[in-house]
Amino acid sequence: MANIKDIARLAGVSASTVSRVINQSGYVNEKTRITIEKIMKQLDYVPNRNAVSLKTGRTGFLGIVAPYFNDSMNLLLSHFTMAAQKEGYNISLFMTLNDKNKEIQAFEMLRRKQIDAVLLLIRLNEWSVLEQYAKYGPVVTWQRLDSDIIHSVYMNQYDGYTLALEHLYKKGRRKIVNLYGNLESLNTRSRMKAYEDFCKKYNIHYNENFHGIASVKNGENMAQWWLKQKEKPDAFATLSDSVAAGLFTKAQEYGLDIPRDFSVMGFDDIEISRLLKLTTIHYPIDLQAKNAFIIIDNILNNKNTPSFPLSFHLVERKST
Amino acid sequence: MANIKDIARLAGVSASTVSRVINQSGYVNEKTRITIEKIMKQLDYVPNRNAVSLKTGRTGFLGIVAPYFNDSMNLLLSHFTMAAQKEGYNISLFMTLNDKNKEIQAFEMLRRKQIDAVLLLIRLNEWSVLEQYAKYGPVVTWQRLDSDIIHSVYMNQYDGYTLALEHLYKKGRRKIVNLYGNLESLNTRSRMKAYEDFCKKYNIHYNENFHGIASVKNGENMAQWWLKQKEKPDAFATLSDSVAAGLFTKAQEYGLDIPRDFSVMGFDDIEISRLLKLTTIHYPIDLQAKNAFIIIDNILNNKNTPSFPLSFHLVERKST
Repeated sequence: MANIKDIARLAGVSASTVSRVINQSGYVNEKTRITIEKIMKQLDYVPNRNAVSLKTGRTGFLGIVAPYFNDSMNLLLSHFTMAAQKEGYNISLFMTLNDKNKEIQAFEMLRRKQIDAVLLLIRLNEWSVLEQYAKYGPVVTWQRLDSDIIHSVYMNQYDGYTLALEHLYKKGRRKIVNLYGNLESLNTRSRMKAYEDFCKKYNIHYNENFHGIASVKNGENMAQWWLKQKEKPDAFATLSDSVAAGLFTKAQEYGLDIPRDFSVMGFDDIEISRLLKLTTIHYPIDLQAKNAFIIIDNILNNKNTPSFPLSFHLVERKST
Repeated sequence: MANIKDIARLAGVSASTVSRVINQSGYVNEKTRITIEKIMKQLDYVPNRNAVSLKTGRTGFLGIVAPYFNDSMNLLLSHFTMAAQKEGYNISLFMTLNDKNKEIQAFEMLRRKQIDAVLLLIRLNEWSVLEQYAKYGPVVTWQRLDSDIIHSVYMNQYDGYTLALEHLYKKGRRKIVNLYGNLESLNTRSRMKAYEDFCKKYNIHYNENFHGIASVKNGENMAQWWLKQKEKPDAFATLSDSVAAGLFTKAQEYGLDIPRDFSVMGFDDIEISRLLKLTTIHYPIDLQAKNAFIIIDNILNNKNTPSFPLSFHLVERKST
């Protein structure tokens, strides 16, 4: 069978140029690349994958780990995959399905050098368990974490939620119900702190909150709840566009007029919010994804590419 | 460094049992597995990945290839990943971004034995080009294709679309506008044939059709179109729930009453149709994904697992 030197000779280039084409790493003149690929095809040359891996010490695979994939996570997945592929990496996908062992299996692949790095969307195991794997390769998470070992591309929800509350205030809303997610999460804590500070700033004493309101169904139920109240709140700040969408569509079904009866504030700016014209908070998932890749790429290749600055902004539509 | 034999001796089992645990293939008693893993951890044993690959002749990676990922495709991705992981495979993800070369790169990985098989959601290159790669490993597609070389898990849209038309007929609709997708696609041809046969069956001569109506925005524009018509159609059959959602929400914005003014029929049964209470056609993406994996697994491991039967069904909600 033909080897790299044969191909190099036929193409009139050095073996290292052929190697760069095979490994899809480093610059090769487009015309030269096409010539080399043509020759490899003619010879039906199949590179020895294992040799490639042994030489670079890398597999070229980056792992993405998550229990499941929702709309926002799919967006992160897409943008991270695009950024990684652009630099010649491949993506390996791990759905842990709320099984802690499956998450460990993915991290074990980092230890066994079957993947070069991990982007962890939502963790299942304790951080202390996962941190032990960071010595085998870069680990970046989407979740909020202050750690020198695992890197995070999180955004402080305090800022985003404050934007939402300030907008509702500007619209004359004073009785805002907070629909929080999981009480344990740091994101929820940040949002609660944002509401606390907001109340102090404007001397507001209204305090009607719910926890664990995370699904479309949960949002729908809140419309029913609103109907039953004697003292009607005039706005809902929600965990996500999905919750807001459930609340909004159910309210319409009941013949309520949004925002006359009450304002509905989304969060995330996903497709559904555009469709239903929900006011929401946008945050740059695309840039979070790019930053996650930049961190990994910087560590693996001793680069110093700067991260993108991340900021929330209000998207005003018709639900507030 | 410790090797497999050391671990086997310490665990009091055979080397092949240890190997099964390392390769995550074949049955190992749960208690034994835990013991072996504990010993491997104590010794900080990292198996030689390349040795594993050389022994099995497999990488354990299955590639999923698509130009982008929309809601339906994400569902397919999730279910395929779950099925594959259950049998010990890992998933490698390729977003081709409408770049034919990127698609070829993914198939080149099949040729180089960096992945064991390919699930192709939407192709970019000609089938004749891609078929050349099928000799290196199983290739399955979600798209409609009659080929002995590349396998397909498609469903004949004729049946699904007929279900939709029959439902509209039952609701008294006789002036149905067809919002088709890409005129070139075999799916569109099937739907056009279904409408043709439907018209013959019921002696209907209404014939108002649009092509390339594939996005939310396209759907929205159709609401405006309806307003302008002198002879109003009484129903729209659409390519997808996204198109139906655009049409439905825009019609509501114009103060129209759906389905009094006209019926809106979705297709796909994705989240948005549940949220907006759109009548739609459900098809089992989960089973298509499972069948895709079964085909691959059967070929790779000489198995004979039967596929799931696939059928459409009508989901009647409030838009018809």
